[in-house]
Amino acid sequence: MLIVMDHQAPPELVRAVVEKIESLGYRAHPIPGAERTAIGITGNREPLDPAVFEALAGVRAAIPVTRPFKLVSREVRLEGSVVKVGEAVFGEGSFPVIAGPCAVEDREMMIETACRLRAAGAQLLRGGAFKPRTSPYSFQGLGEEGLRILQQAREASGLPVVTEALDVESFPLVEETADMIQIGARNMQNFALLRRAGRARKPVLLKRGISATLEEWLMAAEYVVAEGNHEVVLCERGVRTFADHSRNTLDLSVIPAVKHLSHLPIAVDPSHGTGRRDRVIPLARAALAVGAHGLMVEVHPEPDRARSDGAQSLDLEQFANLMSQLRAMAPVLGYRIGASAP
Amino acid sequence: MLIVMDHQAPPELVRAVVEKIESLGYRAHPIPGAERTAIGITGNREPLDPAVFEALAGVRAAIPVTRPFKLVSREVRLEGSVVKVGEAVFGEGSFPVIAGPCAVEDREMMIETACRLRAAGAQLLRGGAFKPRTSPYSFQGLGEEGLRILQQAREASGLPVVTEALDVESFPLVEETADMIQIGARNMQNFALLRRAGRARKPVLLKRGISATLEEWLMAAEYVVAEGNHEVVLCERGVRTFADHSRNTLDLSVIPAVKHLSHLPIAVDPSHGTGRRDRVIPLARAALAVGAHGLMVEVHPEPDRARSDGAQSLDLEQFANLMSQLRAMAPVLGYRIGASAP
Amino acid sequence: MLIVMDHQAPPELVRAVVEKIESLGYRAHPIPGAERTAIGITGNREPLDPAVFEALAGVRAAIPVTRPFKLVSREVRLEGSVVKVGEAVFGEGSFPVIAGPCAVEDREMMIETACRLRAAGAQLLRGGAFKPRTSPYSFQGLGEEGLRILQQAREASGLPVVTEALDVESFPLVEETADMIQIGARNMQNFALLRRAGRARKPVLLKRGISATLEEWLMAAEYVVAEGNHEVVLCERGVRTFADHSRNTLDLSVIPAVKHLSHLPIAVDPSHGTGRRDRVIPLARAALAVGAHGLMVEVHPEPDRARSDGAQSLDLEQFANLMSQLRAMAPVLGYRIGASAP
Amino acid sequence: MLIVMDHQAPPELVRAVVEKIESLGYRAHPIPGAERTAIGITGNREPLDPAVFEALAGVRAAIPVTRPFKLVSREVRLEGSVVKVGEAVFGEGSFPVIAGPCAVEDREMMIETACRLRAAGAQLLRGGAFKPRTSPYSFQGLGEEGLRILQQAREASGLPVVTEALDVESFPLVEETADMIQIGARNMQNFALLRRAGRARKPVLLKRGISATLEEWLMAAEYVVAEGNHEVVLCERGVRTFADHSRNTLDLSVIPAVKHLSHLPIAVDPSHGTGRRDRVIPLARAALAVGAHGLMVEVHPEPDRARSDGAQSLDLEQFANLMSQLRAMAPVLGYRIGASAP
Repeated sequence: MLIVMDHQAPPELVRAVVEKIESLGYRAHPIPGAERTAIGITGNREPLDPAVFEALAGVRAAIPVTRPFKLVSREVRLEGSVVKVGEAVFGEGSFPVIAGPCAVEDREMMIETACRLRAAGAQLLRGGAFKPRTSPYSFQGLGEEGLRILQQAREASGLPVVTEALDVESFPLVEETADMIQIGARNMQNFALLRRAGRARKPVLLKRGISATLEEWLMAAEYVVAEGNHEVVLCERGVRTFADHSRNTLDLSVIPAVKHLSHLPIAVDPSHGTGRRDRVIPLARAALAVGAHGLMVEVHPEPDRARSDGAQSLDLEQFANLMSQLRAMAPVLGYRIGASAP
Repeated sequence: MLIVMDHQAPPELVRAVVEKIESLGYRAHPIPGAERTAIGITGNREPLDPAVFEALAGVRAAIPVTRPFKLVSREVRLEGSVVKVGEAVFGEGSFPVIAGPCAVEDREMMIETACRLRAAGAQLLRGGAFKPRTSPYSFQGLGEEGLRILQQAREASGLPVVTEALDVESFPLVEETADMIQIGARNMQNFALLRRAGRARKPVLLKRGISATLEEWLMAAEYVVAEGNHEVVLCERGVRTFADHSRNTLDLSVIPAVKHLSHLPIAVDPSHGTGRRDRVIPLARAALAVGAHGLMVEVHPEPDRARSDGAQSLDLEQFANLMSQLRAMAPVLGYRIGASAP
Repeated sequence: MLIVMDHQAPPELVRAVVEKIESLGYRAHPIPGAERTAIGITGNREPLDPAVFEALAGVRAAIPVTRPFKLVSREVRLEGSVVKVGEAVFGEGSFPVIAGPCAVEDREMMIETACRLRAAGAQLLRGGAFKPRTSPYSFQGLGEEGLRILQQAREASGLPVVTEALDVESFPLVEETADMIQIGARNMQNFALLRRAGRARKPVLLKRGISATLEEWLMAAEYVVAEGNHEVVLCERGVRTFADHSRNTLDLSVIPAVKHLSHLPIAVDPSHGTGRRDRVIPLARAALAVGAHGLMVEVHPEPDRARSDGAQSLDLEQFANLMSQLRAMAPVLGYRIGASAP
Repeated sequence: MLIVMDHQAPPELVRAVVEKIESLGYRAHPIPGAERTAIGITGNREPLDPAVFEALAGVRAAIPVTRPFKLVSREVRLEGSVVKVGEAVFGEGSFPVIAGPCAVEDREMMIETACRLRAAGAQLLRGGAFKPRTSPYSFQGLGEEGLRILQQAREASGLPVVTEALDVESFPLVEETADMIQIGARNMQNFALLRRAGRARKPVLLKRGISATLEEWLMAAEYVVAEGNHEVVLCERGVRTFADHSRNTLDLSVIPAVKHLSHLPIAVDPSHGTGRRDRVIPLARAALAVGAHGLMVEVHPEPDRARSDGAQSLDLEQFANLMSQLRAMAPVLGYRIGASAP
C-alpha cells in the first residue's frame, strides 16, 4: 500500500498517518517529495483496505501495490498448470474443444450429436441440465433427467462431459455425473458454490462474471483452489459494455493478461461472447490465434429448433468446418488440436 | 416481437418467415414498406427469443416489444405497493432509513449503536452477519453469533433488523432472525436463493446487481414474487462503469424508471454506491429529492476501526446530521421521515 | 510515480530501474519489503508515463501518485471559483437555471419563450444555433441566423445567452453573440477548440465527454484555463454505460468528486442526462440536493413539434412547476434560486 | 419505426397516435394484439426520432427498425470496398500492415526506421506529427517539421505515409503530405473535421471513438462519404469499459459486425487497443484470424526512449517476429500479406 498525502500536508499529519500505520503493526516508509509526501507500507500479510487510510486527515489516496491472490498467481508457480479431463488437456500446447447444445433436450438427439461431435474432433461434450434463466418463466432445463442423458451420451461417444452446477443443493448430482463442472458467469461470486466446487474431486470450468475485473475473477478461482481443488480452467465468455452490436463484448485481451498473472489455463466461449452464430467461427479462430488453451462452442443439430440460445449455436456442418479451420491453423501457431478426425 | 427483413428481401423469404411464425403457433402480420418489409408477431404467451428469428434467411433483426415481467409490472397494478417492516413503511410517502454497520462485530457496540441510531431517527437496523467477500482471506462475518447479536440489538433498541442471506444453506437462520432479508448485489441472479426468498414469510430487500439492467433486476424480483412473496423492496446501490472517481456509479435515474415500470418500492444505498463517506450525505439528499422510497446507509461508531468498509461509513454524529437534513427537506418534497427524533 | 517490482525481482533489476530513473533526471527512493521492493520517484515536474517504467524488466506496475492538472485543482485554490454571467452567479450558494429549446428554430417562438422563461425564473437562455448531429442527414441548426435570433431574444427578455461553439471556424461568430460559450460533450477533447475557448473573453460551459473520466474532464478544463480564460463552469450531462433504461446515466456522484478535486463550479443537465421528459424534474431536484452550482434544462413551448430532442424537453408549464419545486427546496439546502418570480 | 402502445391503451389513444403519424406525412399500420396494439410507420425518408412518439399519451416505446446510414451500408453495395494506398490494398484478401512510431521525433531515426520497417514487410509508415494529448503539458508533436520528416522517410523507404489530421486548420498541411489521413478516436464526432476529410483527395483511416457504438461509427464514416470521399478504412482501437487489466478493451467482435453491415474495409490497432507491448503480438494474430483487412502497430527502434506511448511500442526485432508470424498464418486463412520480405 502506498499512501499519498495532500499537497502541502503539514508534518504533523504525516506523523499521524505514520503512527496509525505502526499502530496496526505495519512498517511505514515516508518518501518526501517536492510537492507532497508519500508513505509506503510494508509488513502486512493480507491486503489492506485503502479506505482505512483514505479516511485519515491529510491523505489524498491509498494505492494497493500487491496482488491479493496467492495460490492462483503466476508468482507462486512459474510454469502453467495443466488440467486433464479424459484425454483432453488444457495447457501444454493442446487446444481441446468443448462442444454441444446449450441445453440437454432429448436423449436420442443428444447421443447422436455427441457421436457426431466426436467424429468432427470435439474432445468434450457440453450440455446444460440445470439452466440459469433471467426469467422464471423460461425453460429451466431437464434437471436430473438431463444428467442421465449426458451420462448415456458419454457412454455412447466416449466424450467426457462438462455441465453446469447451478447451486449447492444440486451440486452432488452434478459432481457425480460430470467429468468437469462448470460454474456459470452469474455464479462467479456465489461463494458457497465456489467453496463447494473447491471440495469436489472433479475439474472446474470457471466462467468470468459478466462485469468481473480480472482480479475478481482470479479471486473467485482462489476460493476454489483454497479449498483444495487445483483443477481449475478459466473461461472468458464476454463482458457487458455499452456496445450493442453484440450480446456481450468478447474480451480476448484478457487471455494474455491471465497468462501474465496466473498459471491457470484459460478457454474461450465465443458462443455466449457474441450471441450470434455468424460471429462464432471468426472469434473461435481469434481465440486460437491469441493463445487460449481451449474453446467452448454451442452446437445443435437443428439450431432453429433449440429450446434456448439457438441463434448462437452452430449446426454440425458448421462445427466440422470450424474444426477443419482450427486444425489448419494449429501447427502454424504451435498447437495440437485434440483428437484427430477420422 | 417485430421482425425486420433485409432491404429487398424477396417475397419468398418473407413468406418463409411468416410460415415459420405460424408453424410455432403465433400469428404473423406483414407490414410492407418502401424499402423493406416488417412482420409483427402476436399470440405468444411468453417472451420469444429474438435469436430464433434472426437466424432465418433474409431477417435483419428481431425486436422484442413486450416486457417479460408480469407480476412486478406497473401494468398489472397501477398503485404502488407498500411494504411494512415493523413501524417502517416503504411506499405511501414515507422514507424509512435503514442504518448500521457494514458487519456485526461486537455485541456491546451493536446494542449501543442501535439505540443511538434509533434516537437519531433510523427506523431499521442493518448489520451483516454473513458477509460476501471478494477474497477468501477477508473477514467473512460472525455468522450465527452475528445473528444473535442482531436479535439482542433489536430487543434493546426496538428497531427491526435487516440482514443479508448469503446462501440457501444459511437462509433459515437468517429468516428466523431478520425482520427483512437482504439479497445482495452479487446474488441478484442466484436463482435458488431468489426462489427460497420467495417462500419466506419476511419482506425482502433486493439489491441491484452490479451490472444489472433494469429488466434483469425486475425479473429477479419476479422470481421472488412468483413464489408467493409479494413483500419486495428494490435497492439501488451503484453500477459498474468506466468511471473511477467513485467505487460504483450510483444510478439515481433508475428511481423514476422503476416507478414507471413497476409497482415495487425502491430504496437507495449511497454507501456502497459511492464507497466514500464524504459522498454519502450529498447523495442521500439526492435520493430523497429524486423520489426514492427509503434509504440504507452504513453507520459505525468508530469508522476507522471497522473491520470492513469503514471508509464508506458515517459516524454517529454525521448520521444525526444527515437525519436532520432529511427531516428539513422532507415536508418540502411531500415526504414523512420515519420516527420523530426525541 | 511508484514502481512496484516483481515478487523476488533480483537486486540487479532493482538497480537497473533506479539507474533508469536517475538517467531521466529524477530521484529514486527504493522501499524494500518482505515480498517485493517498491521504488518511489520524485523530482519530476510533469506527469510521468507509467508505460515507460512498466516496460522495464522486473517491473510489475508503475502507479501515478500525483494529479496531472494544476490550474483547475482545488490544491492551488482552496475556495471555490465564482463565474458570473450577467446577473447569474455560478458559485457562492446561488443556483442559476439555464433554460431554452435544444435548437433555435423560429424567431417569434424564441423571443416569446425567452420572456416566459424569465418570468418563470430562468437566469440564462439556451438554444443551439450550430447543432452537432450523429447523422449528416439530420437538422444541423440555423447557424448564423440562429445566433441573430438569440441576440433578439436576449434583447427582448434580458436573459444572457448560452450557445454551443461547434468548431474553431464558427467560434468568432459564437463568441461575438453569446454571453457564455458551450463546449459540447463530443468536443470535450477537441483540443484546438478548447485552446480557442481559452483565448475567448467569455465564460465557458464545458460539458463532460460521454465517457470521460473525471481526470480527463478536468484536464480539458485545464486546456481552457492554461490559455488564460479562468471563467469555466463544468456541466455533467450523463455518461455512457450498459444501462438501457435511460439515454445516458446521469452521474450525480461526480458533483461532490469535482468539488473535492477542483475549485471550478459545476452544473447539471438532466435533459441530456436522461433523454426523457418525465425523468428531468426528479433529477433536477436531485442535482440541487446533491450540491451542484446550477442547472441546464431543455424547455420548448411545444415539445412535440421540436425539430430535435423534443422528448426530453419540458413545456413551459412543466418548467414553471420545476422552478417552484426548486424554489421551495432552496432555502432548506442553503441555496438562493436565481431571479425571483414576478 | 414501430410504436408499442401501453397495455390496454384505449382505442382513442391509438387513434391519436395514428393521426399524429399521418399528420407528419407518414403511413401508420396498426397491429392489434391480445395484450396491446403496435403501430408500424412507413414512408419516412430519414430516420425518425423515437422521442417524438414516446412523448405521446399511451405510447410505451418507439423502436427504430431501419438503419440510419446509407452510403456506407452493405445494403447499397454488396461487395466489399477496396481502398488502395500506394501498393497497399485494404480489401480483396490482402492484409497491409501500417507500422511506425507513435510520434515523429527525429529525422534520422525516422528514415532508418522506415527503411527497416519496409524490409520487415510493413506496407505503410505511420508517425504522428500533430498529437492529441489529454494534458496541455504533454509533448504535442513536432507539427509541420514532423510532416517534412515523414516526407523524407517516404522518399527514402518508398512507404506511403499515414498521419493524423488533428483539426481543420492544419488539415491542408496534412493532406498535402500524407498518403492516407488518419482521423483519431477523439475526433470521431468532430463533424467539421469529418466533412473536411470528405472533401480531401486522399484515403481516410477513421478510428473508432472510445465509446462509439457501431452505428455512430458508421454514421461518422457516412459524414466523410457523403461529402464525396469514398476511400474510407475503419480502424478498431479498443473501447472504454470497466475492465482495468488493459488500457482499452479491444473489440474484435466488431470486425464481423462491420463486415455484416458495411462494405468499408476495417483494420485493427492492437497497440492502442491494449497499451502494452506484450499484448500486441497475440492480438495482432487474433486480428488476422478474425478477418480484419489490415493492421496498425506502433514500432519504435528504442521503445524505452520514446517520447510517447513507448510501453505499447514493439521494437524492430519484435516487429519482424510479428510479421513472420502473420506471414505463416496468412495462407491458412486465405490472406496475402503485403510486400514480401527480402
